[in-house]
Amino acid sequence: MSKALPTRSENYSEWYNELVKRADLAENSAVRGCMVIKPYGFSIWEKMQRALDDMFKETGHSNAYFPLFIPKSFLSKEADHVEGFAKECAVVTHYRLMNDPNGGGVVVDPSAKLEEELIVRPTSETVIWSTYKNWIQSYRDLPLLINQWANVVRWEMRTRIFLRTTEFLWQEGHTAHATEAEAIAETEQMLEVYATFAEEWMALPVLRGIKTPNERFAGAVETYCIEALMQDTKALQAGTSHFLGQNFAKAFDVKFQDKEGKLEYVWGTSWGSSTRMMGALIMAHSDDAGLVLPPKLAPIQVVIIPIYRDQNQFDQISAKVQELMKDLKKRGISVKFDSSDAYKPGYKFAEYELRGVPVRLAMGARDLENGTVEVARRDTKTKETVALEGIVDHIEELLENIQQSIYNKALAFQKDNSHKADTYEEFKEILDTKGGFIYAHWDGTPETENRIKEETKATIRCIPLNAEAEEGVCIVTGKPSGRRVVFARAY
Amino acid sequence: MSKALPTRSENYSEWYNELVKRADLAENSAVRGCMVIKPYGFSIWEKMQRALDDMFKETGHSNAYFPLFIPKSFLSKEADHVEGFAKECAVVTHYRLMNDPNGGGVVVDPSAKLEEELIVRPTSETVIWSTYKNWIQSYRDLPLLINQWANVVRWEMRTRIFLRTTEFLWQEGHTAHATEAEAIAETEQMLEVYATFAEEWMALPVLRGIKTPNERFAGAVETYCIEALMQDTKALQAGTSHFLGQNFAKAFDVKFQDKEGKLEYVWGTSWGSSTRMMGALIMAHSDDAGLVLPPKLAPIQVVIIPIYRDQNQFDQISAKVQELMKDLKKRGISVKFDSSDAYKPGYKFAEYELRGVPVRLAMGARDLENGTVEVARRDTKTKETVALEGIVDHIEELLENIQQSIYNKALAFQKDNSHKADTYEEFKEILDTKGGFIYAHWDGTPETENRIKEETKATIRCIPLNAEAEEGVCIVTGKPSGRRVVFARAY
Ligand SMILES: [Zn+2]
Ligand SMILES: [Zn+2]
Repeated sequence: MSKALPTRSENYSEWYNELVKRADLAENSAVRGCMVIKPYGFSIWEKMQRALDDMFKETGHSNAYFPLFIPKSFLSKEADHVEGFAKECAVVTHYRLMNDPNGGGVVVDPSAKLEEELIVRPTSETVIWSTYKNWIQSYRDLPLLINQWANVVRWEMRTRIFLRTTEFLWQEGHTAHATEAEAIAETEQMLEVYATFAEEWMALPVLRGIKTPNERFAGAVETYCIEALMQDTKALQAGTSHFLGQNFAKAFDVKFQDKEGKLEYVWGTSWGSSTRMMGALIMAHSDDAGLVLPPKLAPIQVVIIPIYRDQNQFDQISAKVQELMKDLKKRGISVKFDSSDAYKPGYKFAEYELRGVPVRLAMGARDLENGTVEVARRDTKTKETVALEGIVDHIEELLENIQQSIYNKALAFQKDNSHKADTYEEFKEILDTKGGFIYAHWDGTPETENRIKEETKATIRCIPLNAEAEEGVCIVTGKPSGRRVVFARAY
Repeated sequence: MSKALPTRSENYSEWYNELVKRADLAENSAVRGCMVIKPYGFSIWEKMQRALDDMFKETGHSNAYFPLFIPKSFLSKEADHVEGFAKECAVVTHYRLMNDPNGGGVVVDPSAKLEEELIVRPTSETVIWSTYKNWIQSYRDLPLLINQWANVVRWEMRTRIFLRTTEFLWQEGHTAHATEAEAIAETEQMLEVYATFAEEWMALPVLRGIKTPNERFAGAVETYCIEALMQDTKALQAGTSHFLGQNFAKAFDVKFQDKEGKLEYVWGTSWGSSTRMMGALIMAHSDDAGLVLPPKLAPIQVVIIPIYRDQNQFDQISAKVQELMKDLKKRGISVKFDSSDAYKPGYKFAEYELRGVPVRLAMGARDLENGTVEVARRDTKTKETVALEGIVDHIEELLENIQQSIYNKALAFQKDNSHKADTYEEFKEILDTKGGFIYAHWDGTPETENRIKEETKATIRCIPLNAEAEEGVCIVTGKPSGRRVVFARAY
């Protein structure tokens, strides 16, 4: 580690950028807005994928794969979808290169122009519903519960690693149902899957809510979302689940014969989460020394560093460590023994702090004598000397403890940064001095929502699912409102 | 199942196409040459991915992710690479659509033209080596052992599901090394990983060999491959591993400081396997009744079908089955109980045969009385009645037995369809009457190779790694040759 990170209070944004780079998570590529996810970063993403994928399968979904390319004409089929969505995207117009007749490398072969341009998928509703048309004839074919893991491209003007990139990795679920009620239940179930994943794996407390029509997914009847709070008190949407009604079924003419033999349009949902969650994970928990990873998503949960003067000491420590590693692995704990002699222990300590390894063990000559090991936890940076006897149980409990304690800290932060505002003045003051989630009354109109956004850069993150009925008046117009909605400045 | 499959002897090609469709493996999409991989097909691919990924990780590799898009200029940097490779590809020229001013949906926004066109990756050597330049400074940064799972696009004129599609899924390993010897050892190790996967998981015996310069990967110094034989006696290349020498390091200026402080170019390898293996798996083992899956790659290893007259019988069978399923699952055996009453047992039998489920259990009233179950194996289509006592051990052994026996059958087929030819006449006769692998002497020139290809459509599949030295003369030119190479007509 050459120099220290910028601190969060100094420059949160620079802190994030540097952390992403120095912890070997990702970097910008030669292609504007597209990132390279580096091995360490990708191994975190793989853990997220595995956990989510298991949850999708437990709830009855299967994976499949649909084409990268979407015929341009598909995008126009669902009117709202094309209006709200599909403009900023990568367009394939040709299918061949040729040697530059003037000798300058390769050029596009003008004779190889596609009859219809292809769009690199920004999301796959259109291509998937055009396929579902052939898969669904009868109520027996329903529900159809499919997910795909894929790359998608949205031509973003301002990009930020993980948070907003031109190409990103995600999963998109697309389901089809016989009834409206079943589709809504599916939409809500998948929101709960995302919320559970955020809370139990990412240690990230989230609000569950519904988007306003303004913020709704293009083509959806209702968009559900989970919203988390970052350490700079800005909000981040970490997953969305859409009830599509019959919109895509109608656009692509997907009907089924019900039990009575009647032909009906199918009801749909879609839901997605992406590498953006990597950004949320980093920004929610990490500190000025580097990443703080919840143990359940840490590629390395325990690192062991030997502290020795000579080969003899090293050999003795190494023998103890091998034994310990075997026991830890038996419990399913991932452990790394960093025995390289290229770097000093102090350097290694800082490196693994930077990378967010939850537990660090250090073993030296005195530990050998006393049958102990030094145990340091990354989240609180506390250390203790622990007897090797029973150490595996201790570490297992410690990892659970860290997972819970990172969550508790984030939850306390969220509570501390949730405020009520009853007037527009108060609202603006909280926004400028404290940020966070602001619970306020709103008259339900897009006009007021837009005005607030223009004047304050705050958006309605969601109408919380658990919002209590409360009579009040809109902070801007004074019109009546039946419950508070959640505002925030957001990523 | 509406009607029977075409038979292999009738029309092998139609048999394959229909099987892929009817067994719910994949289908053509609305985009020419791009396929939809359906849930059942994808679940087989997931099993392949998991097994390969575990092997990559056991051999020290990490996954990462590199951009989908490659700047056009990158392709010209490695001269052979662009010559041999990069012409037929999808070219992104624009990044925005707009509403058609004439009201016809959306059109490409002419003002959103990219300064430099982007190519949808046909393979990622160029973008990865341009990244490695920043990752590699010293011998300490080596070896760099990275793999990515990704989609790639090659604009194919004649496509065939799984075997040759415009977009396909694959993994591509890209490694960097300090020495030539280490890079060659890596290339050979990964070939062996592919061969082991083919033989132990896919139950598919393969030849390990080296490609002739003609068939070499564009930009490689040496291409290793594994070659399998399909039931129509045509060969199929199922994986390749390339020793890149310093070609890409020189093209992208990737140097490292060695232990003596000298600056040297890095040595590289790349290796890939794709959804094409799905085609190989299907074509190698399946029969006229449908898929035959090796148990290790079967999404459902055991299906249980109840045969009953009334609810009471069903309940009794169901109780027994629940118990059995618990025991099977405990052993890690994937099992499905098809209790639906929408279809008759005979229909279900045919369906699971079509889908290649290795073991089918049927339980009826007499089985209840006798404490037995009917066990049918898919590969040989034999049935036996087995006591429920000890059935789990029996099934576990049966699955291993099926795995081995599918392999043995394919190995016998490969042996029966490997021939030696000592004259060009003999060669052509074998090719036209028997097909398969033909071992023949060749003078080592691309001219002779091309002539044989033009005249017979047979190509040199590989120079086998285990080929014995044998003095002989080229079947075409009569020039001396030191060992036989393997010819075949191929997919
Ligand atoms: Zn407050
Ligand atoms: Zn023979």
